[in-house]
Amino acid sequence: MASGRVEPAFCRGSHTMVVPMLMFKQNRDRLCERLRKNSKVPKGAIVVLQGGESFTRHCSDHEPVFRQESYFHWMFGVEESDFYGALEVDTGKAILFPPLLPDEYAVWMGKLLTEEDFRVRYEVDECHFQTKISDVLKAKSPSMLLTLHGLNTDSSKHSREAAFDGISEFTVNNELLHPEIADRVFKSDLELEVLRYTNRISSEAHKSVMRNVRPGMFEYQLESLFHHYCYFQGGLRNLSYTCICGSGDNGSVLHYGHAGAPNSKQLDNGDILLDMGGEYYCYASDITCSYPCNGKFTDKQKGIYNAVLKASRAVMAAIKPGVSWVAMHQLAERVQLEELRSQGLVQGDVDEMMKVNLGAIFMPHGLGHFMGIDTHDVGGYPEGTERIDQPGLRSLRTVRNLDHRMVITIEPGIYFINTLLDQALANPDQARFMCREVVDTYRGFGGVRIEDDIAVTEDGMECLTVVPRTVEEIEELMAEGRRGQQVPLPQETEKMVI
Amino acid sequence: MASGRVEPAFCRGSHTMVVPMLMFKQNRDRLCERLRKNSKVPKGAIVVLQGGESFTRHCSDHEPVFRQESYFHWMFGVEESDFYGALEVDTGKAILFPPLLPDEYAVWMGKLLTEEDFRVRYEVDECHFQTKISDVLKAKSPSMLLTLHGLNTDSSKHSREAAFDGISEFTVNNELLHPEIADRVFKSDLELEVLRYTNRISSEAHKSVMRNVRPGMFEYQLESLFHHYCYFQGGLRNLSYTCICGSGDNGSVLHYGHAGAPNSKQLDNGDILLDMGGEYYCYASDITCSYPCNGKFTDKQKGIYNAVLKASRAVMAAIKPGVSWVAMHQLAERVQLEELRSQGLVQGDVDEMMKVNLGAIFMPHGLGHFMGIDTHDVGGYPEGTERIDQPGLRSLRTVRNLDHRMVITIEPGIYFINTLLDQALANPDQARFMCREVVDTYRGFGGVRIEDDIAVTEDGMECLTVVPRTVEEIEELMAEGRRGQQVPLPQETEKMVI
Repeated sequence: MASGRVEPAFCRGSHTMVVPMLMFKQNRDRLCERLRKNSKVPKGAIVVLQGGESFTRHCSDHEPVFRQESYFHWMFGVEESDFYGALEVDTGKAILFPPLLPDEYAVWMGKLLTEEDFRVRYEVDECHFQTKISDVLKAKSPSMLLTLHGLNTDSSKHSREAAFDGISEFTVNNELLHPEIADRVFKSDLELEVLRYTNRISSEAHKSVMRNVRPGMFEYQLESLFHHYCYFQGGLRNLSYTCICGSGDNGSVLHYGHAGAPNSKQLDNGDILLDMGGEYYCYASDITCSYPCNGKFTDKQKGIYNAVLKASRAVMAAIKPGVSWVAMHQLAERVQLEELRSQGLVQGDVDEMMKVNLGAIFMPHGLGHFMGIDTHDVGGYPEGTERIDQPGLRSLRTVRNLDHRMVITIEPGIYFINTLLDQALANPDQARFMCREVVDTYRGFGGVRIEDDIAVTEDGMECLTVVPRTVEEIEELMAEGRRGQQVPLPQETEKMVI
Repeated sequence: MASGRVEPAFCRGSHTMVVPMLMFKQNRDRLCERLRKNSKVPKGAIVVLQGGESFTRHCSDHEPVFRQESYFHWMFGVEESDFYGALEVDTGKAILFPPLLPDEYAVWMGKLLTEEDFRVRYEVDECHFQTKISDVLKAKSPSMLLTLHGLNTDSSKHSREAAFDGISEFTVNNELLHPEIADRVFKSDLELEVLRYTNRISSEAHKSVMRNVRPGMFEYQLESLFHHYCYFQGGLRNLSYTCICGSGDNGSVLHYGHAGAPNSKQLDNGDILLDMGGEYYCYASDITCSYPCNGKFTDKQKGIYNAVLKASRAVMAAIKPGVSWVAMHQLAERVQLEELRSQGLVQGDVDEMMKVNLGAIFMPHGLGHFMGIDTHDVGGYPEGTERIDQPGLRSLRTVRNLDHRMVITIEPGIYFINTLLDQALANPDQARFMCREVVDTYRGFGGVRIEDDIAVTEDGMECLTVVPRTVEEIEELMAEGRRGQQVPLPQETEKMVI
């Protein structure tokens, strides 16, 4: 927390962004307003949320750094684990219930905060230790407790409903809140500021990697450089997701970087695809840069790269409130197919290619996803919307029309994935468009993805990501890095081999 | 995995350690040998373990990087989640059961490995996809399946017993395995090599921080520097535990660094206590360095520091097989009390101080803990041993006598914790030894801890940690850092404030 400031706020260091607690009050006020308009919500209702719990790994006492549950963060901005929070719908009053820790914890955890300390820190109206939750709520005689229960359409998991000793004595409704809190998909001005900050730091971190990368490094060293920049320079302790640092053919593995493929390949002279983003105070960024790690695009690399860039920029030019995300996905596919045709990888009529879903052979994922407190942010499929059961479109994380204050990633890509290429070549409907001999020369090429985070404005969009995007910009920054002092690499030591 | 090597092995990069799969075979062979000597284990028994599962955060699809469950790692060294493993006690044959993933996962996760790929990679005797686990085991007609169920005395949690469809058709015993697999507390030559490597890289990372730290930095920037060194230079993706980077009074908060106290204070001119360790292939290190961040000890800092160092070195000089860990803890307490007496903080007879547990006022934690695949490694309280219910001793993570091949931390410390000092001053039995006026001048001083990882040898011990330890060594390295190029700090920008 920032010290010496009158206004309660989150701040990691004097060089990092100050986020006022007002942001969460605004979120709560919006939620109350929506709930009050909902005729099914009676007067005197109280929202009750349970925050994330700390846990230890397997049977050990290893406790990973706690990261707040995202809905709870959106409402209260609480950094610590094991809280409850409540919100009086009629008045907008917020109440926090921290866990009451035994006195002896002070030796291990530091000075234990009082109820008043927490109240001031998070700028809420009341704060009571959790032991009193039932009594405090009972004294307010709520007509109904609104708890959170609903499907996360990215994970297919349900949000965890608040539960505490004594809740059975209240009238509880777990259906009304979820559709209303989905308002989280629209970002306030303050939230947009935080997302801008996270994006700016993560963009700079990508640039730092661009300056330092060279053949012979290992993929994970780029992950390390990126995280260090984010944390040291910007106070971003957590990354938004596991870094995908694919070199060569690994660039075509969409979720590369996990424990079974842990960014452990040595970079040769070829392409790298780096999908990495940091998070600040739980607000995400999600950025992909693709470029040759030796700093110079070949004609072939340039061709594929520019095809993806053209798709990205076509989508950006089209985005404004009211535009269909499905249409944007199809626009990206169309531009990419046109470009692939002009480079001789496919042939024939692009409309016909679209009818047989040829786009999904080269881009098997959706064009992007909402982003906010979660990397794959909620709100993609509100009640009444459904997935489209077609290759590519099936992977879309939303089918909504875009609207002002939505934040979404735009991440077209072209990949050469053997199983998909073979599938297309074996399918007469698709094979007739494929120039087999040319396509075969791209096997092992990997993939190119260009991913930016954007906010929909009143009449268009704002790109939050600020990294070099044209071939010329990338080559210039990489050359600049090579002219300066690059990070030294560790020595290979035979001594370390058993 | 190392490529181009005949011997199956783990290796992160060409500059990092190569760990042969033989290490796990040796572990399994030791376990089989012990089980065969156990008269309660019938011929034809098979050990079945369930590996760690992947999971997502709350209701989102955010999946943290998977880290293997520690017993499973000790037996098989498998990097991926959701495996089962089995071990034929009579023959020592090892069998792995990876999950059978749908073909379409290849697009997201990379080329799916076959049973034979996994068999070769982890150098086991058989490998079958998990769908066949019941059939494969049934075909072996085991007399008994041995599953793992037992208490982790650090977490008070029980290990999770293997369970799979069809297990009810077998005779299952969940009691015999746990006491035998506790043999994990003794490290093989190969395991010691890995622990040496992890310690060496983490020691170098501490030195890198020492060279770069200066007043005005934020605590978390030291965490960032440390992690980056470990990962970039040594391939240590995970840290063994959350970094404790306490400056000033925070040095007296034993588990500082958690989400509620996230290493976010700016360093002034005073002391810092840095407890940080990296892990390589799940093998831990756990190192604490304490020093003034301006590079120059005051007489007061030197006094407390040397008191702790003297305790540390007295313990190291005494350690050999057969020595009681309780006696080592008491030795450290005694040396520290003698030193505090010579510096005028306490007065009177040290034997009498020991009788009223005065040592625990200044060092409220145990002297150290076993270390291996977990930072707080298992085996501290085997059946038949019990905690000693006295301040200080109560916190000991083991009361065993030390033996050859045990790896344990030695981490004496002196802290000035107001609640404990006040407690002592209010307790007539303890207060008579306290020089209140002198002690009061140390309030806010923070704390000093010196933590090394050691392996017990046949006739003494080996210190795995290699960092500057004397006042002179530390001041020299910090001065060297100041003479060179230190990492530049981020600029404070008012623009970032909303």
